[in-house]
Order: sequence, then structure tokens, then C-alpha cells
Amino acid sequence: MKIIVVGGTGTIGKAVVRELGERHQIITISHHHGNLTVDIKDVASIQKMYEAIGSFDAVISTVGKVHFGKMVDMTDSDYAVGLHDKLMGQVNLVLQGLKHINEGGSFTLTSGILSHDPIRYGTSASMVNAAIDGFVRSAAIEMPKGIRINSVSPTVLAESMESYGDYFHGFEPVTAERVALAYSKSVEGAQTGQIYKVGY
Amino acid sequence: MKIIVVGGTGTIGKAVVRELGERHQIITISHHHGNLTVDIKDVASIQKMYEAIGSFDAVISTVGKVHFGKMVDMTDSDYAVGLHDKLMGQVNLVLQGLKHINEGGSFTLTSGILSHDPIRYGTSASMVNAAIDGFVRSAAIEMPKGIRINSVSPTVLAESMESYGDYFHGFEPVTAERVALAYSKSVEGAQTGQIYKVGY
Repeated sequence: MKIIVVGGTGTIGKAVVRELGERHQIITISHHHGNLTVDIKDVASIQKMYEAIGSFDAVISTVGKVHFGKMVDMTDSDYAVGLHDKLMGQVNLVLQGLKHINEGGSFTLTSGILSHDPIRYGTSASMVNAAIDGFVRSAAIEMPKGIRINSVSPTVLAESMESYGDYFHGFEPVTAERVALAYSKSVEGAQTGQIYKVGY
Repeated sequence: MKIIVVGGTGTIGKAVVRELGERHQIITISHHHGNLTVDIKDVASIQKMYEAIGSFDAVISTVGKVHFGKMVDMTDSDYAVGLHDKLMGQVNLVLQGLKHINEGGSFTLTSGILSHDPIRYGTSASMVNAAIDGFVRSAAIEMPKGIRINSVSPTVLAESMESYGDYFHGFEPVTAERVALAYSKSVEGAQTGQIYKVGY
């Protein structure tokens, strides 16, 4: 398969490329590095990326920013960060990708544990992760041409504990290597409309 | 209690006013009618509404628009309707309301069954309803001064079946009168961070 990994230079993305690269052609996309880049907040940038690639069999997205902050200090603009980037950035990867993806292809998005297991300062992440999972469940029943869609919802990464561990006391971390398996199941399996929880 | 019902002239809102009006002071807010109106898409309009009301004990929101359409034809702007109106409109009612609500007060938002049980043309509703529930679960753990927050997630209304029934074949409708009980439980009970599913 020809698989696009948007965010393939990040912690999860690199593990996904390692897992799937053994048996598939991988096109790694990042925001800043390499020949192909994308700004997922910008629909025109997404269109340009897909036009440069041509047809493909799967898109994996492991990207998306949200603003973390104390709820009582959060503003409409703080929530807009996550809605435009992690949520609509990934949704627009699907909407635009549908014009280029091969029959029977798949989309795999990334949400996260905070949708159901909140932490302090995480209201935007909880909102956005839940929204991604809601979109995936619904989009799956409207996909044309046998195209599938799933999301991977990991708990906190072991690799992130040094930076974010103080916000996740009591959460059992999971390695990016284990998280990568869920993307393999999504792309190489046959399920659709699934939220793959990893590590919880 | 002094209870603000945003959307109090709608189908659910009227039932909520009937249920809670027997034992509380109700301030009914709509988009168009009455002395007090609000455009929930506009933070300044929300601020103006709260300043006109002064302090209060509870906010119930039964409002919010989303765009329904075939997923493959949906655009970024179509999704923006629901994100700005039903999602951030209700979230901004909370963020701004926190500046005026009494200690021990409560917020009750409205999501809906499509978060988990999708229909054709409903990807935006599924996304937005799930996002509201995710926000509520998370906001609950950061609320100051004993303030609570819950959402009510009803299935399709019996009163809406004439208009929308064709999209909801096989769904068992629920009357607005039954849905109103969940708002009573949220406001008059002591729970927080709950998603009250009604009729499913």
C-alpha cells in the first residue's frame, strides 16, 4: 500500500513509520521538514499536498495542536486553536483526501484519552478528542467506495512523561511503539468507525 | 432558584420552563423574542445578556445549530456552523456565566444521541454533540466554588418526528416533557460531569 503519514516525524508518527514501513510505501509529511509539508489548518495547503502525491491507499494523521490552560482563564480564541488545528485539520485531511484516495482505502485519525478521562487544564483537549471520535463514528457510515475511517485514542505516551508527566499523575503511560500497532490494525485490518483505545 | 433558560421558547426549552417554573424563578432567553435576547455565536451578546440579568443560580441551554449534509459534500464552513453555534455558543455561555453565577450554581448544556448513534448527513452533529459531552466531563473537574456542569443528551424528540422522522427511522422518539426531567435532575440534584442520556 501507499500510505501517507501526516506527522510522520513526531513521536507517534516515527513509530508508525517504523511499524508500517517494513511492508508498505510510506510518504512522510510534516509541518516543517522534508520535500512535502502541510499546514493542516489551511485547506489550500492540504489540497496542494494531495495534488503533489496523487493517488494513495491510506492516510494516517498523528498531528494536532490544542491549547492547555486553566478553564476559568480559557477564551473563545484558546478553544479555537484546537478546533482549527487538531479537529478540523484532521477532518479536512479526510474531506480533501476523499478526492484522491483509492477505492477501499482508509483514514486513521488521532484523538486521545482525555475525551473520557479528563485532567486539569485539559478542557480543550477533552472537547477536541471527543469531537474527533464522534466525527469518526459518523463519517464511517457515509464513506463511499468501501473507504474506511477509524481513530486511535492513546493514553499519555511514555516518551512524553518527562515533559507532561506532572499533568498525568496516576496515568499508566504507553510507548509509541505500542500505540503504532493500533494504526497498523486500522490500516491493514478491515474495521471501520472504530475508536482504538491504547493503554487504557 | 433563579434559573436562566437559553432557548426557553423552543420545544425542549418550553418543557423545561413548564417543569422548573413551578418551583423556581425562570428567566427565558431566546434569539428573537422577548425583552432579553442573545446571539450565542457572539461573546459580546452573551456578556450583555448576563450583565442585564445580574446574579443567578443556574443556566440551562437548550439551543444550538448544526449543518446537516452529505459528508462528501460538507466543507470546512459547513462544520464551522456547528462549531461556532451549538458547541462554542454553549461553551461561551459557561465561560461568561462563570463571572456572574452564584456559588454552588450549575450549568446544563444540550448535546444529543448522534454523538454515539450516527445517522446519514449527521457528521457535524455527531462531532459537535460528542465535543459538548467531552467538554462537560472535563470542565466539571475544574469548576470553582462548588459550581456544577452536566449535559442532557436526548434521542430524537417526538415533537420533531414530523419534520425529521425520515432521518431517524428506527429511533424511538422521546417527548420534550420526559427530556425536561433530565434538566431538573441536573439543576436540582447534586451531580456534576454527567451526560444524561434521555430515551436511549
